[in-house]
Amino acid sequence: MFSKILIANRGEIALRIIRACKEMGIATVAVFSEADESSLHVSLADESICIGPAPVTDSYLNISAILSAAVLTGAEAIHPGYGLLSENPKFARLCAQCEIAFIGPSWDLIEKMGDKDQARSTMEAAGVPIVPGTDIIDDPDEAQKRADAIGYPLLVKARSGGGGKGIRLVERSEAFLNEFHMARQEAQNAFSDGAVYLEKFLTRVKHIEVQLLCDHHGNVVTLGERECSIQRKNQKLLEESPSPSLTEETRQSMMAVSAKAAKAIGYKNAGTIEFLLDTQGNYYFMEMNTRLQVEHPITEMVTGIDIVKWQIRIASGLALTFTQDDVHIQGHAIECRINAENPLLDFRPNCGTISFLHVPGGPWVRFDTLLYQGYAIPPYYDSLVGKLIVHSKTRELTIRKMKAALCELVIEGIEHTSQVQLDILSNELFVKGDYYTDFMEVAFDKTISE
Amino acid sequence: MFSKILIANRGEIALRIIRACKEMGIATVAVFSEADESSLHVSLADESICIGPAPVTDSYLNISAILSAAVLTGAEAIHPGYGLLSENPKFARLCAQCEIAFIGPSWDLIEKMGDKDQARSTMEAAGVPIVPGTDIIDDPDEAQKRADAIGYPLLVKARSGGGGKGIRLVERSEAFLNEFHMARQEAQNAFSDGAVYLEKFLTRVKHIEVQLLCDHHGNVVTLGERECSIQRKNQKLLEESPSPSLTEETRQSMMAVSAKAAKAIGYKNAGTIEFLLDTQGNYYFMEMNTRLQVEHPITEMVTGIDIVKWQIRIASGLALTFTQDDVHIQGHAIECRINAENPLLDFRPNCGTISFLHVPGGPWVRFDTLLYQGYAIPPYYDSLVGKLIVHSKTRELTIRKMKAALCELVIEGIEHTSQVQLDILSNELFVKGDYYTDFMEVAFDKTISE
Repeated sequence: MFSKILIANRGEIALRIIRACKEMGIATVAVFSEADESSLHVSLADESICIGPAPVTDSYLNISAILSAAVLTGAEAIHPGYGLLSENPKFARLCAQCEIAFIGPSWDLIEKMGDKDQARSTMEAAGVPIVPGTDIIDDPDEAQKRADAIGYPLLVKARSGGGGKGIRLVERSEAFLNEFHMARQEAQNAFSDGAVYLEKFLTRVKHIEVQLLCDHHGNVVTLGERECSIQRKNQKLLEESPSPSLTEETRQSMMAVSAKAAKAIGYKNAGTIEFLLDTQGNYYFMEMNTRLQVEHPITEMVTGIDIVKWQIRIASGLALTFTQDDVHIQGHAIECRINAENPLLDFRPNCGTISFLHVPGGPWVRFDTLLYQGYAIPPYYDSLVGKLIVHSKTRELTIRKMKAALCELVIEGIEHTSQVQLDILSNELFVKGDYYTDFMEVAFDKTISE
Repeated sequence: MFSKILIANRGEIALRIIRACKEMGIATVAVFSEADESSLHVSLADESICIGPAPVTDSYLNISAILSAAVLTGAEAIHPGYGLLSENPKFARLCAQCEIAFIGPSWDLIEKMGDKDQARSTMEAAGVPIVPGTDIIDDPDEAQKRADAIGYPLLVKARSGGGGKGIRLVERSEAFLNEFHMARQEAQNAFSDGAVYLEKFLTRVKHIEVQLLCDHHGNVVTLGERECSIQRKNQKLLEESPSPSLTEETRQSMMAVSAKAAKAIGYKNAGTIEFLLDTQGNYYFMEMNTRLQVEHPITEMVTGIDIVKWQIRIASGLALTFTQDDVHIQGHAIECRINAENPLLDFRPNCGTISFLHVPGGPWVRFDTLLYQGYAIPPYYDSLVGKLIVHSKTRELTIRKMKAALCELVIEGIEHTSQVQLDILSNELFVKGDYYTDFMEVAFDKTISE
């Protein structure tokens, strides 16, 4: 087992990793920007090193500064958390070259899954259903033919796009050629990569993802699914596990397909395969996240398995001590992402000093947060300030528990999202489980902008 | 189900009950003394009523003020928490007379179990092993004979004693008569009740208690045991579940005996039977607590059952929805009672204003506390300021998790006990599970006073 780990991240996830290390008896090194000197992850780690100025490109994305910190402190491994460098193949490769264990899969797998087109074809080859569509396509006539065959609406997607950028929706055949040219041009301008592909546009779909743990001894387990359809501009706001919409048959099929694919591609460590699920129970590969997810805690709650500890154990070469048969999904868990955003001002991020903090408590309530009373939130980073996670026996009880916990949460000094999440939890469609990725627009955008 | 409950308590347990009510959709009424106006339980309840000046006798023990508050607010039930009026039969009886449901057993059972002698004979009649001893005994010659038959060391105990008071240890036969007279005299002076009985004095014993839930439909379940041997002057400091020392055979026997006794005496609601366990696996009835225990959360963690919610459901007449076969003990849980006491000054209570508070977090870490940053702890009440509870798969992992959590806990502005609990968790005897009710004296008193 590693004796010292550097955490190449900040915020709540850095705390999460530091806590896991402390329980495992592993020393921790925090890295921090000049804006994060008074952050909790710096206080809680055994050592800490400043790696540069506030902007992430100068600090948390500064690969050489981070690797130097690791070498300097004698860290044997680096946990990248999520976001930042967690899916950067170059970083993972350089870690390996420095003989520092990267807590995640190998750099070539990160690279492969980071390229949407390659990910898609790799998964298709591994037997995972994919959304009907094409590979990279350049010839406009051929593209028109293929588009007509797939049917409309469809999407023209840039190979290098992401976060909602580089996607064009085509509603009918006559509009196709024009949109196809525009998409290529835009992609070229935005990403210096004009390559695009076509994909069937699915309406009324759910975002369902499968959590995997794969060790270096050929063992692969799935830890159930998370439903993450409650999103606003592709940002998840609330996640739950299990999904209220999956039949046991579809669930078993998704788990089996995911495990088979992970084995086929030789995946190692924790990973997540994201699917779109339509109303007929068909599911299609969307992307694979080769890292810890923000919403991993709900899986921890329903399985009793500490995913971060297993990431560390797997990276150190340990084999899983349990099999698929030992994984039992118990009860229901929901996570709300508490963001420092003002829902009344179109979710504009805001920052400030926390003048009062009261965290909800009691049984099966967890609040993973970087906040403390007196903390001044710096303006440079992600607006996520806490993740409220609750666990109960049934979905109904879990919704009640989350509502009570959200009502109890007090964060003074900033605007945040908890009222929106309370509204979601009271929404009839949500309560019925009858919601899709367009839920926020369907149910709320009008109300919120009124 | 009740629509409104009054919580006749303060501190962390009032919060615990309010949270349960909120999840159940039940309105809450807090009562508070003049010293508790800025307490969290007042802020979190839907309504609150001041019931008198700071001293408990003028407020939290003021039965008529509390009953008036319940009538005034239309509360249909009263939850007494622990301590204060929770085991006061008169209070329970008056609730019934006011047609307010008392969330606990009937007043006559509280009365019966509150009298040590009656409790002992009732339990003996119900088939529970009791410590070899006598009923109330007045005649000195007869007492000497019985004492010699039981053997030494033995205890002369006052019927009306409690909290370590009214007990005399007799080491040998020649000393008996003198101690017997002294004990009677002392009991008469202290409790206006000179009645005493004899009991074998057990050395190297563990304090093991069984949690019961009994509804009004004849259903009784046991929720495993808690080991509470880590005590200082009869005050529990750290509890764990399951006990590291119980064989499965003894455990099953204790559970069966407890369930049988609860049925025999017609017990209703949550209750706890406390036993002394000797090194040979013999166990003896100590007392029955006819209320929620401080340490109930560790049972909640290992069973997944919310004891407070079940207290409320049972009091409202609902039947248990699970049977003994559905109760599975999963993993291990430990609770540390964080007291505002200075371990370096013989655990002298202290109070002050909380200038900084950082609560440990992450998976399976729970901190039930009345504290918030800026809170001024009033000098009138119990020194318990928080209960840190962790849950993990094995005892070893739970100890590690608790250590990490205790290290992370920051409470500035008062002295508290967390360092003592860290020392306990690192003690070799504790780690081995080889500890008894004298653990604190054996392992620590020297170190602490040095």
